[in-house]
Amino acid sequence: MRTLAEKVISCCRQLAQFSEEPERTTRTYLSPPMHDVHRVLSDWMRQADMTVSVDASGNLRGVRGAAKRRLLIASHLDTVPNAGAFDGVLGVVLGVALVESLGDRPLPFAIEVIGFSEEEGVRFGEPFIGSKALCGSLTMQPAIAEAIAAFGLSPADLPAARMDAGSFAYLEFHVEQGPILESLGLPLGVVESIVGQSRLRITLEGKANHAGTTPAHLRHDALAAAAEWIALVEGQMREQPGLVATVGKMEVEPGAANVIPGLVRLTLDVRHASDRVRKLAVDTLLASASNLCARRGIHFRCEPYLDQPAVPMNANLIKQLAAAVQRAGYPVHCMASGAGHDAMIVAPSCPAAMLFLRSPGGISHHPEESVLVSDVVAVLQAGVAFIEGLA
Amino acid sequence: MRTLAEKVISCCRQLAQFSEEPERTTRTYLSPPMHDVHRVLSDWMRQADMTVSVDASGNLRGVRGAAKRRLLIASHLDTVPNAGAFDGVLGVVLGVALVESLGDRPLPFAIEVIGFSEEEGVRFGEPFIGSKALCGSLTMQPAIAEAIAAFGLSPADLPAARMDAGSFAYLEFHVEQGPILESLGLPLGVVESIVGQSRLRITLEGKANHAGTTPAHLRHDALAAAAEWIALVEGQMREQPGLVATVGKMEVEPGAANVIPGLVRLTLDVRHASDRVRKLAVDTLLASASNLCARRGIHFRCEPYLDQPAVPMNANLIKQLAAAVQRAGYPVHCMASGAGHDAMIVAPSCPAAMLFLRSPGGISHHPEESVLVSDVVAVLQAGVAFIEGLA
Repeated sequence: MRTLAEKVISCCRQLAQFSEEPERTTRTYLSPPMHDVHRVLSDWMRQADMTVSVDASGNLRGVRGAAKRRLLIASHLDTVPNAGAFDGVLGVVLGVALVESLGDRPLPFAIEVIGFSEEEGVRFGEPFIGSKALCGSLTMQPAIAEAIAAFGLSPADLPAARMDAGSFAYLEFHVEQGPILESLGLPLGVVESIVGQSRLRITLEGKANHAGTTPAHLRHDALAAAAEWIALVEGQMREQPGLVATVGKMEVEPGAANVIPGLVRLTLDVRHASDRVRKLAVDTLLASASNLCARRGIHFRCEPYLDQPAVPMNANLIKQLAAAVQRAGYPVHCMASGAGHDAMIVAPSCPAAMLFLRSPGGISHHPEESVLVSDVVAVLQAGVAFIEGLA
Repeated sequence: MRTLAEKVISCCRQLAQFSEEPERTTRTYLSPPMHDVHRVLSDWMRQADMTVSVDASGNLRGVRGAAKRRLLIASHLDTVPNAGAFDGVLGVVLGVALVESLGDRPLPFAIEVIGFSEEEGVRFGEPFIGSKALCGSLTMQPAIAEAIAAFGLSPADLPAARMDAGSFAYLEFHVEQGPILESLGLPLGVVESIVGQSRLRITLEGKANHAGTTPAHLRHDALAAAAEWIALVEGQMREQPGLVATVGKMEVEPGAANVIPGLVRLTLDVRHASDRVRKLAVDTLLASASNLCARRGIHFRCEPYLDQPAVPMNANLIKQLAAAVQRAGYPVHCMASGAGHDAMIVAPSCPAAMLFLRSPGGISHHPEESVLVSDVVAVLQAGVAFIEGLA
């Protein structure tokens, strides 16, 4: 398995060289280097006796076997700008490696490995093009149709991209892209749920004034109000297990050292595996913002712009995946995914599961993104055990 | 006095029309409209029997009487961009009006009214050019010498701009430019001291990270650290009477809704009439910043870039000014000036005093800056009483 794990890693590193930009990995939806990725992976798929095709949305698809029932193993092949070598790609390469490792062992189901053409949403600002095409939920903008044609595919064939009717389970391997597994000293994490997200734009409008001549009790300092509130946001996060709440963007106006800030614009991002907990947290935070602004004579406005429900993974598959991890000899750790993944799009159409690999340093979306060989061994062993369990 | 007060206000409004920009008042150091201001004020000075000159730094100077001892009444004639009609100019016009109101009453001292050419520092980034020239402390940059020559003056004559050796007192009338007198319902404020200022640039460097996948206990959020600290800055200000402390400028990086802020750059402005109190406040705030950053795993850097001591006004003149306000029939309120003024430059060379007029709405450096006629009456009456007291 160690040799196969090393092959997986070296393949990911090779694919990372196929880029739109010199010296760094940037591979957006159906950009020219995607042809090279398809070529390398198709070759390996064919060597592993798979039937290869590219669907109308640009997904690379390799099928092993002809049984009616079908296990899908998938992740995405596109990247963010200046990406690492493993986000997305690793899940596809692992699928091919697993099929190779099965050899000609007979199975009561087919396995389809899918390399989604698009997950990050970089090229058209629309994420999940590949998995949406698989689920028949893609609304194709003209620009996307043009990109498909330019890549040598036919947009009219999109309906044929839908998943095979016999698909009974979807499995996605993915780097964690966070520090949790590393902080626990664990190689693998079974994803129970992809968290829901709320995002809001908030404006605090006080009164800009002279920093020297305006005494404390006559100030309406928008930044002081924001600071008081950010402390509450952090407090809420610390109190509520599993909740993350972030003020990521903040602009302060007029922005001079000797002028009391009159205006603050900021964003709030709140995530939790339970939609109820998440919404309660948002409501609580907005109520405290409103109260503290009223007390400070500051006008408070809030504009929610994202309210995405949590997506639980399939309970039966979670159980089977956990059992497989255990049989492979690794500790089972169940966790929520704090980021969105293709599994979230697929889950309503097909029972879905995800297995996370530890991200060294928690680093992702960055050239220093990496995986440990031993963790890739672990995920391969767990993958084999999962397939054996399903069989 | 009401007629004279109305004349003062109408003169200020007339002078506000002399601007470098259409539709708004902007009159920087020795810009062409300064000629018009000099013309109008010179005419009035001559009508009041004053001897008029313009010194080499561009200060307009009118002298009443030939006695050896000399009372200086001064403020500045330049403005910020998009200014109001009273900041600076009012103090000069009040000086001329006071001299006019004295008629031919004999006085044991001369009175020199000075309209400083420059206080705001807009044109060359160097403030107080006029008052520095009066005190012999101006280091003349080549650009300033050019501007002087272009205005029709001779830079070589600068030494002659120094104040008359008989100058025994300096009085500056100025709008408060803050909300304190208005909040107390008072027309006048006797300035005891011009506060000292500390300004610092502070950098908090944490670690940018994924807002969804990084749990609370593994974050190094530079903005959360800044927020905790800004609350301490505000608390310090509320606890310490007379202290103002402001975070006016703040930049957050990378500045995306779904990324934990890795870097915050901000400024701190701290002012107090006591240098000891101010420095202690700065030290306390830096110590708490350092502590909370250490606790949060955040790198803290601090670069002080201004440390300007407080300038007390002359104790004897404060007493005389307060007595004059009282004799004129107004309540005496002593206060610190939170902003810098020419009096601060003059104080080391000549006993100095300042009298503030209420700023309606606390508004200054803005076209809506205004004064109440009754407050101008009050300042004229107090001015006459002050001159009588000195005599």
